[in-house]
Amino acid sequence: MMTNNRDNRVEPEASKIRSGTRTLFVIEFDGTDFSGFQIQNNARTVQGEMEKALSKIYKQTIRLHGCSRTDAGVHARRHVSHADLPFRIPEEKIPLALNTFLPQDICVIAARIVDEDFHARFDSRGKRYIYRISDTRCRPSIYRRTACHVPVKLSVERMQEAANHIIGTHDFSAFCASEGLDKNPIRTVNRIEVLRQPITNQIEIMVTGESFLYNMVRIIAGTLVYVSQNKLTIDDVDALFINRDRRRAGKTMPAHGLMLDEVFYDRVDIQSLMLDVFDPV
Amino acid sequence: MMTNNRDNRVEPEASKIRSGTRTLFVIEFDGTDFSGFQIQNNARTVQGEMEKALSKIYKQTIRLHGCSRTDAGVHARRHVSHADLPFRIPEEKIPLALNTFLPQDICVIAARIVDEDFHARFDSRGKRYIYRISDTRCRPSIYRRTACHVPVKLSVERMQEAANHIIGTHDFSAFCASEGLDKNPIRTVNRIEVLRQPITNQIEIMVTGESFLYNMVRIIAGTLVYVSQNKLTIDDVDALFINRDRRRAGKTMPAHGLMLDEVFYDRVDIQSLMLDVFDPV
Repeated sequence: MMTNNRDNRVEPEASKIRSGTRTLFVIEFDGTDFSGFQIQNNARTVQGEMEKALSKIYKQTIRLHGCSRTDAGVHARRHVSHADLPFRIPEEKIPLALNTFLPQDICVIAARIVDEDFHARFDSRGKRYIYRISDTRCRPSIYRRTACHVPVKLSVERMQEAANHIIGTHDFSAFCASEGLDKNPIRTVNRIEVLRQPITNQIEIMVTGESFLYNMVRIIAGTLVYVSQNKLTIDDVDALFINRDRRRAGKTMPAHGLMLDEVFYDRVDIQSLMLDVFDPV
Repeated sequence: MMTNNRDNRVEPEASKIRSGTRTLFVIEFDGTDFSGFQIQNNARTVQGEMEKALSKIYKQTIRLHGCSRTDAGVHARRHVSHADLPFRIPEEKIPLALNTFLPQDICVIAARIVDEDFHARFDSRGKRYIYRISDTRCRPSIYRRTACHVPVKLSVERMQEAANHIIGTHDFSAFCASEGLDKNPIRTVNRIEVLRQPITNQIEIMVTGESFLYNMVRIIAGTLVYVSQNKLTIDDVDALFINRDRRRAGKTMPAHGLMLDEVFYDRVDIQSLMLDVFDPV
């Protein structure tokens, strides 16, 4: 999958990168009213809306390739996809042009012409997801679209303790929806941070890993909630990697609390593009 | 306005406070689809929805008294209001009962029986508002309902510097919409903090004061934005309190970026009620 060109991280060959029409898009979307990312007949999807907008600009059918399919209701702050475009528009003009044709719940925040063999999905080195929980007694209203409601106070410390036992390379079969069980259930979770956001008072679970099984982040979140509620012990969590039994892990938390936060690539120029867009100095 | 009973902050007379049926409500609402707080004919308002729900439970017309009218589109995390109820329901059961009848964009997060002369508006000692700005090049999508879009990078440091010149007791005429100019334009702003929220990347302007003129927080936010954009200098900001000229201050920022965060009362039990609801230990 990796070529020399891609491994040349420090000094990408700028001329080569910019010569083609393969274009990367960084997209933000509110997943509430989408049936997920992937295009489907008779359903409103992010890919469907993006391809519609691209086709309006380029006057022909354009196929978009996403870094991942996200489920219905899941949000993304920096989703990455790519497409081959029939002619060149200056990359800095693409976002505004596309946003003119896109609905309010999706927006292209950056576009970049990349080399011809770049692939949003296969070149991704990892992803960070954020799962949000509102643990107030009554249901949330302002943040009801982006946080799941657990009507019992949770302990950030206890959840972080359990999370520390999930970090690492394991057989994550117990953290995978049965319909999505991969041939290889070994995955590496690099980092999990659990914190309470002071303004919204929500619990945020940030999970960084190389790749994920189906529903894995939502089941990790459900397992941390179960530990906080004393429905599971830390020993039970450790045992999940041995018994690999989905029924012994926590519940699959609802989709709307999940947000794809960032996608990682080896290429310095792509990674810095995302920083540039979001983190003004 | 203050009575001995109310000034007795450390040991409120519990029996007296709990004997009546005057009840305080802490409400959260997403202002997006409301024509503000105050009841109006032929418009969907927070007060209207609350009175409808109260009337269903108590089988008669109930009049609600809010701590402030908020404009259409403005959100509230802890709005306080009160009503006199015809009979007693245990206060801990009131939120869930009311929420059954309330739409998803409003929820009662706490109710407390208070003494007969408590008034949500007249007893308030102050309020904290938060104004949110997304200063990314492209419009926000996930947070489009709760953050205003300014498509130019802003400087938190520069905005905080200007804010420090607004803190204090001044004639705030220049920060008041003409239709709302009070007889007395002197107001005290106790605190303004400007920060960048790391996850959402939004700028949050937190303004705490005893009371506010009409549109005052939105004009303060607009003035800080103008300073960051070099459309106003710090000297210009200082001069606003002398020239008292609305046209020389910043724009009135859009309503949807504004959120009433908290209302302050002298009474320890009311203040701790809000802490209890939102800040689990």
